[in-house]
Parts: sequence; C-alpha cells; structure tokens
Amino acid sequence: MYPPELSRRRWIEQRWRAAAIRHGFDEIDGPTFEHTELYTLKSGDGIVSEIFGVFSGKDEAAVKELGQRLASGENAPAPFALRPEFTPTLARMYAARAGQLPKPTRWFWQQTCFRAERPQRGRLREFMQWNCDIIGTPAEPADAAAYAESLAAQDVDAIAACVGLMEDVGLTPEMVKVRLSSRAVLGSIIRALGVSPENESSAFVLLDRRDRLDDADLEAMAFEFGIHEAGFLAFLKRPRGKRGMEEALSFLEPAAAEGVVAPLRRLLTLLEQAGLSAWCEVDLNIARGLAYYTGMVFEVHETSGAMRAIAGGGRYDNLIETFGGPPTPAVGFGMGDVVLSLVLSDRGLMPDDRAIAGELGLRPDAFVISNGTPESDSALTGLVTRLRAARLHARRSSKATKNIGKLLKDASDCGARFAVIIESASEATLKNLDANTQERVGLADVPAKIAGAR
Amino acid sequence: MYPPELSRRRWIEQRWRAAAIRHGFDEIDGPTFEHTELYTLKSGDGIVSEIFGVFSGKDEAAVKELGQRLASGENAPAPFALRPEFTPTLARMYAARAGQLPKPTRWFWQQTCFRAERPQRGRLREFMQWNCDIIGTPAEPADAAAYAESLAAQDVDAIAACVGLMEDVGLTPEMVKVRLSSRAVLGSIIRALGVSPENESSAFVLLDRRDRLDDADLEAMAFEFGIHEAGFLAFLKRPRGKRGMEEALSFLEPAAAEGVVAPLRRLLTLLEQAGLSAWCEVDLNIARGLAYYTGMVFEVHETSGAMRAIAGGGRYDNLIETFGGPPTPAVGFGMGDVVLSLVLSDRGLMPDDRAIAGELGLRPDAFVISNGTPESDSALTGLVTRLRAARLHARRSSKATKNIGKLLKDASDCGARFAVIIESASEATLKNLDANTQERVGLADVPAKIAGAR
Repeated sequence: MYPPELSRRRWIEQRWRAAAIRHGFDEIDGPTFEHTELYTLKSGDGIVSEIFGVFSGKDEAAVKELGQRLASGENAPAPFALRPEFTPTLARMYAARAGQLPKPTRWFWQQTCFRAERPQRGRLREFMQWNCDIIGTPAEPADAAAYAESLAAQDVDAIAACVGLMEDVGLTPEMVKVRLSSRAVLGSIIRALGVSPENESSAFVLLDRRDRLDDADLEAMAFEFGIHEAGFLAFLKRPRGKRGMEEALSFLEPAAAEGVVAPLRRLLTLLEQAGLSAWCEVDLNIARGLAYYTGMVFEVHETSGAMRAIAGGGRYDNLIETFGGPPTPAVGFGMGDVVLSLVLSDRGLMPDDRAIAGELGLRPDAFVISNGTPESDSALTGLVTRLRAARLHARRSSKATKNIGKLLKDASDCGARFAVIIESASEATLKNLDANTQERVGLADVPAKIAGAR
Repeated sequence: MYPPELSRRRWIEQRWRAAAIRHGFDEIDGPTFEHTELYTLKSGDGIVSEIFGVFSGKDEAAVKELGQRLASGENAPAPFALRPEFTPTLARMYAARAGQLPKPTRWFWQQTCFRAERPQRGRLREFMQWNCDIIGTPAEPADAAAYAESLAAQDVDAIAACVGLMEDVGLTPEMVKVRLSSRAVLGSIIRALGVSPENESSAFVLLDRRDRLDDADLEAMAFEFGIHEAGFLAFLKRPRGKRGMEEALSFLEPAAAEGVVAPLRRLLTLLEQAGLSAWCEVDLNIARGLAYYTGMVFEVHETSGAMRAIAGGGRYDNLIETFGGPPTPAVGFGMGDVVLSLVLSDRGLMPDDRAIAGELGLRPDAFVISNGTPESDSALTGLVTRLRAARLHARRSSKATKNIGKLLKDASDCGARFAVIIESASEATLKNLDANTQERVGLADVPAKIAGAR
C-alpha cells in the first residue's frame, strides 16, 4: 500500500476508533497468530483449510516432525495459525481475567485478519477488521425478566455502535440496512421441522448458504450433511425475497411462534426507543455462518441488494465458557475495511486525498523554498531543521528546479499551510496559502510565526 | 494486551507517527507475510531458522508436498514467512515503482514484526517496529562531490528524525547516544588486514558480535568462517571500551586512514550544523548485523552502557538494485517498541495512564448517572444515545449501585470531563469535573452544553 491508498485505510481506521471510543469501548489487542486449537476448538477441523498455518523455523526436529505429519495427509495442522478472526482471542482474554473485569466489559479491536483464499474483489487474503463486543451483564440469570431485558439492551447498544459508525461516514438508512435475525427463532424452526440436535449446526450452515447456492445445490449439501427432513428442506428452499418474519414463522404452529418470537419483538421496541428503527429490518434469511452464535444475529447490507455484507455480528452466550471462563453472555459485531471502502467509493462518500490528509493531520505546516541565491540555499536545511525541532511539519522540494513559481505550486499541491521563501541569510517571505496573504519576516522568527498561526 | 497496556503502545505509535510526519515522511504498508525468498535472497538461508514459516491450508496437495520437503530435513522453507523486518518489502515496493517516485522518496512504516525466538525481557516474538527511510537522490553519481554531499545530508536527515522522536519523548543526550560508525571505514580496515572479499560479510558478523562474545568465542567463530588472518583477529580482539575512531584507524596506514575516514568527518560536520552533535558520537565498535549496509551505520544506546539498542540503521546503497530496481542510494533506521518502552519506564518518562488517555483522546466527555428515581433511570439510556449521536464520548456505570457519591467517583476515576446526574425526566445536574463547577440544565440541552464546552 503506497501512501494515498494507505491514507484511505488509515482514515477508515480513525473513524472506527473514534466511533468505538465514543460508544464507550476500550481497545485491546492479541497476537497475530494463535495455537491452531483455538480456532478448531469451536469451528471444527474444517477451518484448517481456510487458515494459514504458522510454525517456527528455530527447532529443526520440530520442523521435521511437522513435515512428517503434513506429508501423512491426515488432519495435521501447523502448531499455530494466522488469526482468521478475533473472537476466539477475545474469549480467551476475557476468560483469563473474568474475575477482575467489569460487567459488562466493552472492548473494541482493530487489526488485520487472514484468510487462505484466492484474493478477489471485496475479499483479500489480509484485511483490516473492526470488532466491538459487550461481555457480561450485572443482571442475575435467576431474575429471568431483568436478565433478558439487560441482554436486549446490550444487543441495541452493539447495533447502535455499528450504526454510529455508518452514520459518521455518511451512509443513510436509504443506502444500508441492518438485517436482523435470531438464532433462537431459527433454532426453534429447525427443531420443529424435525432436524436432530446433532445436525443443528449443519442446518445453520445451510441457511447461511441460501443466498449463494441454488435449490439443487442446497439440497445436495443437506443430503451430504445427513439432513433429509422434508419440512426443513421446504423451509430451506422457500423463496429468497425479503419477507419479514411472518413468512418464516409460518413454518411454526401459531401458538409456538408467538412465544419464540417475543424476544425479537422486544428488541424491535428497544431499537425504536433508541431511534434506530429506520436502520433496521427483520430478515430471517440471515443465519450467519459461524457456529458460536446463540441469539440475535445481524448483517449490514446495501439496500441495492448487493450480496457483500458490510458488517455482521450477534449474540454468543456460550463462547466465554467454552474458553474456560464462567458462564457469560456476550454480543458483538465485526466490520471489514475492504467492503466498507468499496461501498463508500461506489457511493462517492470516500473523501478525496486532500480532505483525508487534513483529517489525519498530514498537511505540512511549512513548505520551505530558497529564492536561489547561494546564501538562501545554504540557509534552507537549517530552517527546515528548526521548524521540525519546533514540532512543526516541514517539507522541502525534492526537485532540483530553482523556479519559484513551480516550487510554490509544489507547496500548494502537497497541501501546505504556509510557503516560506528564503530571501537572504536573515529574511523570508511567509505566504499563508489558505488565506492567500504574505508578509516579510526575519528568518529566525519563521517557526514562531507559523506555530502561532496554527 | 489489555486496555492500559495497549494504550501505552498506542501512545508510542502516536509519537512515532507524529515524528515521522513532521520530518516529511509518508506512510506505507506491506503484507504481514512475504515469499520466503524475499528474506533469503539477501540474508542467506541461515535466516530460515529465525523466522516463522507460513503456508496456506487450502491446497491439500501443496501441504503434502511441503510436508515431504520439511520432513526431508534439508533446506526446505515454507513458501511464505512472517516478516522479521520491513526493509526487504520496502526495497521491493520502491523497485516496483522507481520510475514514478520522487527523488528522494521519504517513507515511514510502523507495524508488527516477528522473530522465531524464545521471548525474553526486551525481545518478544511479535513486536512493533518503526522505520523511516530516504530513498534516491536528485544528485547525479557522475558529479561525485555533489553526490556524496547529497547522501551525507540524507544521513543527517535520517538521524535527525530518530533524534526528533527521542527528544519528543523526553530523552536527552545525557541519557542516550547515537553511536555512529561506517561500513565503508570498517570494510577498508578488513581489507587492509588481509581478509578475502568472500569473507567480508562474515567479518562484519564477527565485528557485530564483539559486544556479546568473549575473545575465545570470537576467535573460534572466525576460524569456523575460515578467517585466520592475524591482523584481523587482533583488530577483532582489541579492547571493547569506546575509544572513538582513532584507535580503530590505527590498524590502517596513516595516509590510507585519512582518505577512508573523510566522509565520516564530513558527516560529523553536517551533524554539528544541524545541531545534533550533542546526541552523536563516533564508535567504530558498531558494525550492525544485517548484510545489506554499505556506508554510515548507527545504533542508539543508553549512556548507562546497557547492551540493548533503542534504534539502529544505516545506509544501504545496493539493496534497491538487488530487488530489481535501478541503482539507488538509500538510508534508514528502525526502532522497536519494546526496548523504547523499557527505557522510558526505567527513566520515569512513560506518562501515567491518565495523561496517555488525554493525549490519545480517550477521556469521556460525559459520565451519565441517574439519581435513582424510576423516571431518571428510564431516561438514562436515551441520554447516552443522544450524547453519542452528537459525536460525544459518553459512558455510564457498569455497576448496579445507586449511590451517587460512588458513581461520581467512577466518573472522576475514568477521567470524564463532565458528570451528568439525571434529576428527573426533564432536568439534569451538569458537573464540570475539571473546573469543579455545576449547574442545573434541561435534559434536552445536555449534549449541546457539553459539546459547547469542548
């Protein structure tokens, strides 16, 4: 990534960070690679084909032993894996300090993740990911009503942070929608339609693939998983159009449906109270691929119907316990930089390079030019040094030209606030390029003059 | 890394970034892992034991084939490697666009690097690294004097950025010194003492190890490399104390010494003109381990004599060409976060958590509290939401307590600018915690009041 491209990513990172902080999240970080079991523990061995294996070249015997295991062809992952996502690390970190951490703990994280796939538009092998998670609650599970209400409020809080970012970068409810669904509701339907408990997670995988596979492929995949229940297959193959929850709930008995859907209805009421209704809609087509979700799940998509998800997340109330912590409810979401960048660019919402430079604090305070006399030439380096020592951002031309008009254009092109033309060993012309004014000043006074004008 | 620890790293990253920008560097980034040949090309196969190998789990046949190569035990690296340093990526990136880039190009980079070693104090497997590099010059090699002068000025510019950072974090020339040396001078001595050209890079490795090995181990290592020249061995085993350049130059004929050392003397003059003399000293004990340095090299050490280097760098005029670019001079340095953090902590220069939170923009604008009545309780979430929608950083207590005194202490502990006590469905007390003043305001006016006070 060369400078202008990287600045655009840094701009997204800065907006992410500001949104997370504003919403009361504290930043954490974990290692770039983890023990492979951290990922296979919950996602199963299948994930090994989607991650990059990592091993140390230090210990020759260990490398040989790894080679023998890899060569044998059976399930033989490397000892470490580049993180494909952050949630397992987060769960491990929370579990390790669960006793000392506040309830809830609100953490955000933004770093690179890795995916062992051929790169394509919207999917790269290495990409930035922003996660916000709310873990734990002060409510007691024994008080079921207060507990449920507390978790619903946290669901809204997580969605609010996601919407807060989108609003901040100029997206509107006309452009994007938070498509809400519920693993609890879908699980009830799956079970009501006769799928056995051991096939439940496969059923979620099938539901998650509905957008990308046609009916024949879905059915073939279902058979491969050992799922043959006609009711579930009919549910799987129902029309894809967005039909709200009524259409999905029609697969349940009306009485059962009402009980199952009550928490989702309560969530909608709370979203309305938080002023988020315009951004949200129920869509039981959303199932999410990852195995660990337990309750509300959501994805953010463009209203244009483009398939790519801008963000996705949900509730995962069992994961902390899986990683050795106490039973702890949790909700969170992730957003990648690649799809967000594409959407903002397509919509004309990505600021231009100059605006980004301003926002990131990259504008030079001074662009220093010599008028071409030997005494001015030899004063140039010293002035640049003094400006930088005064904590000002000073630049000079990299060109050999002595044409002052061309050099002033360079000053303007790089977005400098001031151009400084050294006129002699003791004097300079200070041009304020924003105000289009100029004055003659002593060379020694230039740093203070520019610092004072900031 | 939990929040307070990560904030300290983020603070260092922010100081690095600001220093680089102020000194006219533009940020670039490259992939976390590269093809392994990028590192073996210049450093030799020996580096394979110091890096983490990476491979994709996607292609089963390729994994098997890798396994067979690793199991065979001969030099069989993984296809990719986690970057142990950034310079090879930088050289590749410059070479790919050399035609379009300005001369000089000034790039900085700050990300994680990886080292396949047992972690120890000051050396972790994963660490942050800050690099600043100046690549290319507008001067023409044909005009030898102007060319040499241009490169010397760039050497000073690179050192100035490194010193600029150290000054900015509170270090002084009494605490740390830039120990300057020259591969060109050391190379002349090595050759004058009879070491054959093919053993020259081994001779530099030996010189680099002098600080850590005793004479017997050094000599054994020299013999292993096939270096037996008595003159060089005497040079290698000369006393370690800092003796300036005269003592090292005594191994050359006086006439030859003067010619060889002239560029280093010129560098010292330019450093003095740039006001950097107090920070710098010549120390021909410094050789640097990496193979690609060609001219000036330096390391930053504590004056206390501690071994760990805070930063290191030098001139590498052949590397861009090695990576397929045109012949291009270059100079740069790297600084890690781990040693810098230790030095700042040891010196009491690391700001406390509260000061860091202020500098990183982590202080909450508002900490919202209910006075405990039902109508105030139910207004709390809405106010927090409205504050965040107004781009303010709003927090609330995670505790169940309704004790206003305790909650006000939480507000103060988290560094909030204002505490907002909701008194009813329509009114609040706004406490300015910095000014220690308070006023009664309409609940609806709270966001505007706080935004106006920023």
